[in-house]
Amino acid sequence: SAGPTAARELFTEERSAEVVAASLADTPDPRLRELLTALTRHLHEFVKEVQLTESEWATAIDFLTRTGQMCNEVRQEFILLSDVLGISMLVETINHRAAGGTESTVLGPFHMVESPERDLGADIALDGKGQHCLVTGQVTDQHGNPLPGATIDVWQANEDGFYDVQQPELQPERNLRGLFTADDNGRFWFRSIVPRYYPIPTDGPVGSLLEATARHPFRPAHLHFIVTAPGHRPVTTHLFVDDSPYIDSDAVFGVKESLVRDFPEVDDPERAAELGFPNPYRTVHFDVALLPL
Amino acid sequence: SAGPTAARELFTEERSAEVVAASLADTPDPRLRELLTALTRHLHEFVKEVQLTESEWATAIDFLTRTGQMCNEVRQEFILLSDVLGISMLVETINHRAAGGTESTVLGPFHMVESPERDLGADIALDGKGQHCLVTGQVTDQHGNPLPGATIDVWQANEDGFYDVQQPELQPERNLRGLFTADDNGRFWFRSIVPRYYPIPTDGPVGSLLEATARHPFRPAHLHFIVTAPGHRPVTTHLFVDDSPYIDSDAVFGVKESLVRDFPEVDDPERAAELGFPNPYRTVHFDVALLPL
Ligand SMILES: [Cu+2]
Ligand SMILES: [Fe+3]
Ligand SMILES: [Fe+3]
Repeated sequence: SAGPTAARELFTEERSAEVVAASLADTPDPRLRELLTALTRHLHEFVKEVQLTESEWATAIDFLTRTGQMCNEVRQEFILLSDVLGISMLVETINHRAAGGTESTVLGPFHMVESPERDLGADIALDGKGQHCLVTGQVTDQHGNPLPGATIDVWQANEDGFYDVQQPELQPERNLRGLFTADDNGRFWFRSIVPRYYPIPTDGPVGSLLEATARHPFRPAHLHFIVTAPGHRPVTTHLFVDDSPYIDSDAVFGVKESLVRDFPEVDDPERAAELGFPNPYRTVHFDVALLPL
Repeated sequence: SAGPTAARELFTEERSAEVVAASLADTPDPRLRELLTALTRHLHEFVKEVQLTESEWATAIDFLTRTGQMCNEVRQEFILLSDVLGISMLVETINHRAAGGTESTVLGPFHMVESPERDLGADIALDGKGQHCLVTGQVTDQHGNPLPGATIDVWQANEDGFYDVQQPELQPERNLRGLFTADDNGRFWFRSIVPRYYPIPTDGPVGSLLEATARHPFRPAHLHFIVTAPGHRPVTTHLFVDDSPYIDSDAVFGVKESLVRDFPEVDDPERAAELGFPNPYRTVHFDVALLPL
């Protein structure tokens, strides 16, 4: 077997990837070997295809270095880079193929605190600011059978596009977050407000990349959901607001057609009064289908 | 034209790379657009080919983050990563194709101080430690015509595998460095010692990667050269010691067949005395051919 110092083929442009692959031949973990060998092949293909110059290579090294150095406990610039190149969405989608179930999308960085348990019907807009909205839906299996006792974890930005954790001085703690348990028919409902679109952070290398590519940094308005039920695969997803700006140009490519909903306005003073909403108010309905484990 | 908020295709697994490419369509610099589009395509191909899992993705994010955070003024861990994946050698080779001229190899991190000008014949081993060696050669054009006045910049590790800048307390300043000017026949000669193989730094993420892939961290023994002459393309290269350990498994893939030389021992007491060497001593001959500008 080829020990670490065994004779091997020397480097040539033509066989560069094969030469590096040979050096990985003794990797004990076969999956690691597979990953590194494939990564090397694609990176070498890239360099050859574009005939990367030395100054472009140096720029890339510098960009990666600054990206790593931007990271700390509250900022993950490499995830942001993965996001704006569509890698995060691709990994997410590959690992949660949803034939017959609700499609998934990225988790995002704001599920950092636990959502408080709330009763069905509760208003998660603790400061009452924004366009009031009644959210309803039903959790079922892939055949439409209700899943009683499903849990629905929700978090969203406010009408200014900020999560509670971003504005600890301005928003009540756990504002616009809730953990609900569906009723005997798998149904859930709660009160909230319509969130606003918001930008991903632009003060780091990824922001410069967006600027250099004439891309805006915005994510269209959405509510985050994690829905679970015993015996079923949990789904991490978003509910997108159809008339939000940037709905077809999400900076992180999170929007899937099946996750976009109308938020129609309802003009019904009696129902508004029951809900404690000013009239008119907005509504949205979001059914979630979970696949078996 | 597609403005930053213009309607575009939503994300799907099948067309993931095309969707990201469309978002780059307005990049003002056409080369940047080409580079990012191609990089995205190859990275998405990689993710799809290996069906990257979410935990593998998270490991990669963490690895890249730690690699960036390892970097400071004296340590460039991303270059090291590029080196051990053969990317540095590939970029170097693509940008310095040498049909008919001396082949190039990586610059390496130790050309950080200027080599002192020295007369032909000078001994660059200022501490006289090691196996003494006479280095001779001739700089010519690609047809073998001598290039008088060519400059030969040389630097190398000592017999323990360390450069002067790594051992400021142990080695004299500018030990084993010299900048020579060739004679009227393009010839150069100087005295030195045979360098030892040495490891690249292993105390960071790249060291862990080498360990996980059962690769050693060593570079085979070599002398660094930068050779220039008016009207000709400079060449940055190494002269490798044929009988060095690791000659066929350089951790950074720097070895090219054409750059390896025998360092034969010479048993000639008179010549040794002339050189101020103990007898026997070692020798090496390295001719360098430069291409026209
Ligand atoms: Cu590829
Ligand atoms: Fe979000
Ligand atoms: Fe070196």
